[in-house]
Amino acid sequence: MNIVVSGLGIIGGSMAKAIKKYTDNFVYGINRSREPLEKALACGAIDEAADESALETADMLILGIYPDAAVAFVKKNKSRIKKGCIVIDTCGIKSKICPALKALAEENGFYFVGFHPMAGKEKNGFDVSEADLFQGASGIILPCGAPQTAVDNVAALVRKLGFGMTVFTTPEEHDRMIAFTSQLPHALACAYVFSPRCMKHKGFSAGSYRDVSRVANINAELWAELFIENKEPLADEIQTLIDNLELIKKGIENGDRRELAELLHRGKEIKEALGE
Amino acid sequence: MNIVVSGLGIIGGSMAKAIKKYTDNFVYGINRSREPLEKALACGAIDEAADESALETADMLILGIYPDAAVAFVKKNKSRIKKGCIVIDTCGIKSKICPALKALAEENGFYFVGFHPMAGKEKNGFDVSEADLFQGASGIILPCGAPQTAVDNVAALVRKLGFGMTVFTTPEEHDRMIAFTSQLPHALACAYVFSPRCMKHKGFSAGSYRDVSRVANINAELWAELFIENKEPLADEIQTLIDNLELIKKGIENGDRRELAELLHRGKEIKEALGE
Repeated sequence: MNIVVSGLGIIGGSMAKAIKKYTDNFVYGINRSREPLEKALACGAIDEAADESALETADMLILGIYPDAAVAFVKKNKSRIKKGCIVIDTCGIKSKICPALKALAEENGFYFVGFHPMAGKEKNGFDVSEADLFQGASGIILPCGAPQTAVDNVAALVRKLGFGMTVFTTPEEHDRMIAFTSQLPHALACAYVFSPRCMKHKGFSAGSYRDVSRVANINAELWAELFIENKEPLADEIQTLIDNLELIKKGIENGDRRELAELLHRGKEIKEALGE
Repeated sequence: MNIVVSGLGIIGGSMAKAIKKYTDNFVYGINRSREPLEKALACGAIDEAADESALETADMLILGIYPDAAVAFVKKNKSRIKKGCIVIDTCGIKSKICPALKALAEENGFYFVGFHPMAGKEKNGFDVSEADLFQGASGIILPCGAPQTAVDNVAALVRKLGFGMTVFTTPEEHDRMIAFTSQLPHALACAYVFSPRCMKHKGFSAGSYRDVSRVANINAELWAELFIENKEPLADEIQTLIDNLELIKKGIENGDRRELAELLHRGKEIKEALGE
């Protein structure tokens, strides 16, 4: 296949590198700024630095850009994208963008399959991208009504890139689950480090501080967009956490050791039921 | 020195193993149940399985037991503990127990120095103890008015066991900081996994889920005691987190992307100011 990767940040860059490492496909890179393209060419992450005309021969287009930008890119290039091309996004939210991308695909004779690689780092940009970023990770695939052959093509590529599992779901289910598994921990990490105690933590902290605070080193612009575009599920999830924190706080204030132990023990039971 | 370690769980067991690995001291083990004593003898973590009569010749007593049990143990054995012996606790809270242990020490001619090794695991018991558990960790020392020679002795031992740094503080400052660095992440991990989405997370999750939920696999009895004995600082810290979560939630609901990005960006600034 000829594959165009648009946006060579950590995700697009890692997809390009993984495709070159694990498959025989030809990769064109498109990027707003020049530097990542040059680095990608130099290290073999892409075969050619391209402009949007490469879309005319592309069998697959992978969007490694922010949600709004992804829709805008496809809208702008809808007549350039080859008939039958499979368009994949890699965005962290889906309900807002998948219907728009699906409609553009159906109107213009190409296919849209949503995709969310469950991997990342607390740093961004091409420099931290890695061919093996996806090793063992889950790849979430959102068929969105595309023909089964297109979905199968995406799943086959995903498996070649080292993902440990694939999950098929809808935009609504995706966004509901991601609010809990990924967005909430990011919101939480920020809320946690806002404590006046944080700047004095050294010498008093260990693994549990490190783990909760890790992703506070956030790409604020990207996550503000992701949070607001997943407003209801995320606000719900934050409220659920606040309610559960209130429950534990009341247990502490009541001072009944056995009652509090029973409440906390539910945490252990859940982790054990999950085999974690 | 003759050192008695009372309580061969993860902390007491690791202290015993580290002392045998890194120093020439003689270690007696005391434990309520027999099995950890036999395992400790078999692997060389202790030189002798003892009873409380060993306290009569001990130069140092390390308490690897829960806070209330630690005070009760010293109270019960106050007349057996050798004059000049240095008694060290390893508990996760200090304001409630240090004054009691300091008073017992002063009344009975031995010395008390508070100690909190900032290391642990999400599992408990002698089986998961390790000689190198403390490598690079912080060792918090609470002099509590003990003579400088006793404090120096403790600090010297701590450094030999592989700790990366020592911090000297008061019980009040310790408990205030620990509420933030250690107790809050444990309360939080439980509150987090209480979400109805948790049991369905597989395939939708990656590192940020794993990190926040890790310590939900909690020793509920121990932490219920630690939480309740540090009631005010911890309840305050939970409330601070709830307030900050509310702040982020409002930012999401308002839907102003720039305003939310500015708020989240404070998380990045704090982590960067800390060099993390």
